[in-house]
Amino acid sequence: MIAEKMKNMVANSSAIRAMFEEGNRLAGIYGAENVYDFSLGNPNVPAPEAVKTAIKELLDEDDPVALHGYTNSNSGYADVRAAVAKSVNGRFGTHFTEENIVMTVGAAGGLNVILKTLLNPGDEVIAFAPYFGEYRSYTNNYDGVMVEISPNTADFQPKLDEFEQKITPKTKAVIVNTPNNPTGVVYSEDTIRKMAAIMDAKQREFGTDIYLISDEPYRELVYDNAEVPYLTKYYDNTIVGYSYSKSLSLPGERIGYLVIPDEVADSEEVQAAANVATRILGFVNAPTLQQKVVAKCLGEKTDISYYDRNRETLYHGLKECGFECIKPEGAFYLFVKSPVEDEKAFCQAAKKYNILIVPGSSFACPGYVRLAYCVSYETIVNSLPKFKELAAEYFA
Amino acid sequence: MIAEKMKNMVANSSAIRAMFEEGNRLAGIYGAENVYDFSLGNPNVPAPEAVKTAIKELLDEDDPVALHGYTNSNSGYADVRAAVAKSVNGRFGTHFTEENIVMTVGAAGGLNVILKTLLNPGDEVIAFAPYFGEYRSYTNNYDGVMVEISPNTADFQPKLDEFEQKITPKTKAVIVNTPNNPTGVVYSEDTIRKMAAIMDAKQREFGTDIYLISDEPYRELVYDNAEVPYLTKYYDNTIVGYSYSKSLSLPGERIGYLVIPDEVADSEEVQAAANVATRILGFVNAPTLQQKVVAKCLGEKTDISYYDRNRETLYHGLKECGFECIKPEGAFYLFVKSPVEDEKAFCQAAKKYNILIVPGSSFACPGYVRLAYCVSYETIVNSLPKFKELAAEYFA
Repeated sequence: MIAEKMKNMVANSSAIRAMFEEGNRLAGIYGAENVYDFSLGNPNVPAPEAVKTAIKELLDEDDPVALHGYTNSNSGYADVRAAVAKSVNGRFGTHFTEENIVMTVGAAGGLNVILKTLLNPGDEVIAFAPYFGEYRSYTNNYDGVMVEISPNTADFQPKLDEFEQKITPKTKAVIVNTPNNPTGVVYSEDTIRKMAAIMDAKQREFGTDIYLISDEPYRELVYDNAEVPYLTKYYDNTIVGYSYSKSLSLPGERIGYLVIPDEVADSEEVQAAANVATRILGFVNAPTLQQKVVAKCLGEKTDISYYDRNRETLYHGLKECGFECIKPEGAFYLFVKSPVEDEKAFCQAAKKYNILIVPGSSFACPGYVRLAYCVSYETIVNSLPKFKELAAEYFA
Repeated sequence: MIAEKMKNMVANSSAIRAMFEEGNRLAGIYGAENVYDFSLGNPNVPAPEAVKTAIKELLDEDDPVALHGYTNSNSGYADVRAAVAKSVNGRFGTHFTEENIVMTVGAAGGLNVILKTLLNPGDEVIAFAPYFGEYRSYTNNYDGVMVEISPNTADFQPKLDEFEQKITPKTKAVIVNTPNNPTGVVYSEDTIRKMAAIMDAKQREFGTDIYLISDEPYRELVYDNAEVPYLTKYYDNTIVGYSYSKSLSLPGERIGYLVIPDEVADSEEVQAAANVATRILGFVNAPTLQQKVVAKCLGEKTDISYYDRNRETLYHGLKECGFECIKPEGAFYLFVKSPVEDEKAFCQAAKKYNILIVPGSSFACPGYVRLAYCVSYETIVNSLPKFKELAAEYFA
């Protein structure tokens, strides 16, 4: 008999995953080229050639015992952490050292490590809808309570009035994700400043520490020269979770890092506990070969023009069909208003055309659907006539 | 402020960290070659050449999008899981399919996944002292209660009378680790049969399911043709956690698997929940490149003769000095009786000779110390005169 806590999790098991598996089933029947699977954020852009070169160099030049061995510290190789810190400093004018960096098993691993580090049972974690549904599971893992800020469907910037009202003495952390999954929206500098001011005031009011956790797997995926503020510069109690899943197209390799600045409350204790949490959660250390790979590829970028072409084509194509959506500035998602209130019914209708999309309910924002456009350009182009047929069911 | 639960964990970790820092300090003063660090189970045998070949082939021949992408199922690549199942079947006469295999982030990841899957708060998990201290942390992660069976210092086979007495209606899991860390003992087939009979009877008595979790990172590391029984064949409710950390010298790469046989109670539910636990704990999937690597290296073996020479040399060397210990049949640890009751004082005394060893208290077995002999042969040979000096402090 499985744990009670897991029963719900299994029952509600990610709609996204279920959809992805449905996509594989349909591909088996109709051929992969006739299925338009926009369900999962699995990049279709290959890793930069430099990744392959780096791996081969490491295999040929490094001592295999060191390359594949446990790292001395559970937080990762000292030289990799120092290189990551230097790279972040060079880009954002920060002042981190290796002590501020914990290499993690992707951003999901990093978020689990930091929530395990911080949360007592009953502590509240705030997230702004729409948000990546896994935050709820991660919070639940440590008996935290997820507190939702309702979505601002005008522009999908966070609702700061509601945020201010919902901060309580039990608020331990606030998770932000910008560029955002599922909307593609980048939180403006003005938003960040106001958010920081609210949190500073609430910390003083309640005499508590409220940690801002910035989940940044999409930091490098921005269009039209959009700027993504580096949050540690606006609010002292900020912890950054980064991933190379999208920036280097290595999602399966599980490699990322946490930044725990010295300005964070009880920073040394938090850094030490994150190191221990990495060990006892069973990660032990981020995969060693990939740690070395990313250190060698810090200057590499994914092919953003590929995603940008997809973005423009899908966005304009859907608008022409009559669908409503915000043009995203980042990430690789479109968040489209469902033509009917029950967006799950809309997702079902789309499936008739072999179009797979995810209901907004999975992101605490019903009435919308998410399309991940990290697919091939051909998929986008070939899907548009199908979207047109689908639209004809709703728009006269 | 970090979580209450983490405060203890951080405090207890400082002893290990202190040992690590002490090793670095001593190496700085005396040179690394004059420090005899037996503290960590980090293999000194390089990964087989086939690992390097496999990685290069995968880089040259596989589609990088698939190679480094999320796996379709959080349980891992279907072909890798099928290959692992086939390999296990070929070796042990079992009948597993890919449905029975979940690829994991090492054995530590696998143990966390299965404990997350099974444990309700207050559920009891039995371990036989001496045992790997992390089992306590993993159990605590899911609010389980660790129940210890006291050590049988005669031969370090488990005390089955005490085991039988300590099983209660709250017993959810029993962890065994054979070949054992820290003793190197292999549980005999007779032991396993008796253990299975006790658990079967207790399941009937209480009307409960008691899962036997076999933690097997050392399965391939056996000497003198010792046989390690495959536990699923003796007890239906057995789940196996395997790791390639030692068998292919890839501890830093974090790759292993769980076997959840169809014979396990509620097997489909357990398999589904382990898949979900892999996702929500933040592992998402075992590192993809390494999944493909191990599938290509299923026939490979580490150089066991290297460890065997270390074992023989250290064992006989220590016996000649007057130390008492069981000759290990597996793994790469010697568990030595401390010449004084307070083994921590003995570890301190050893440090004077630049010998670093771990107190048995870390394994719930005070009065003993653990030596990891997965070091270079030179370290073993050069340490023996130092052990002789150390012994002279105790044996007239």
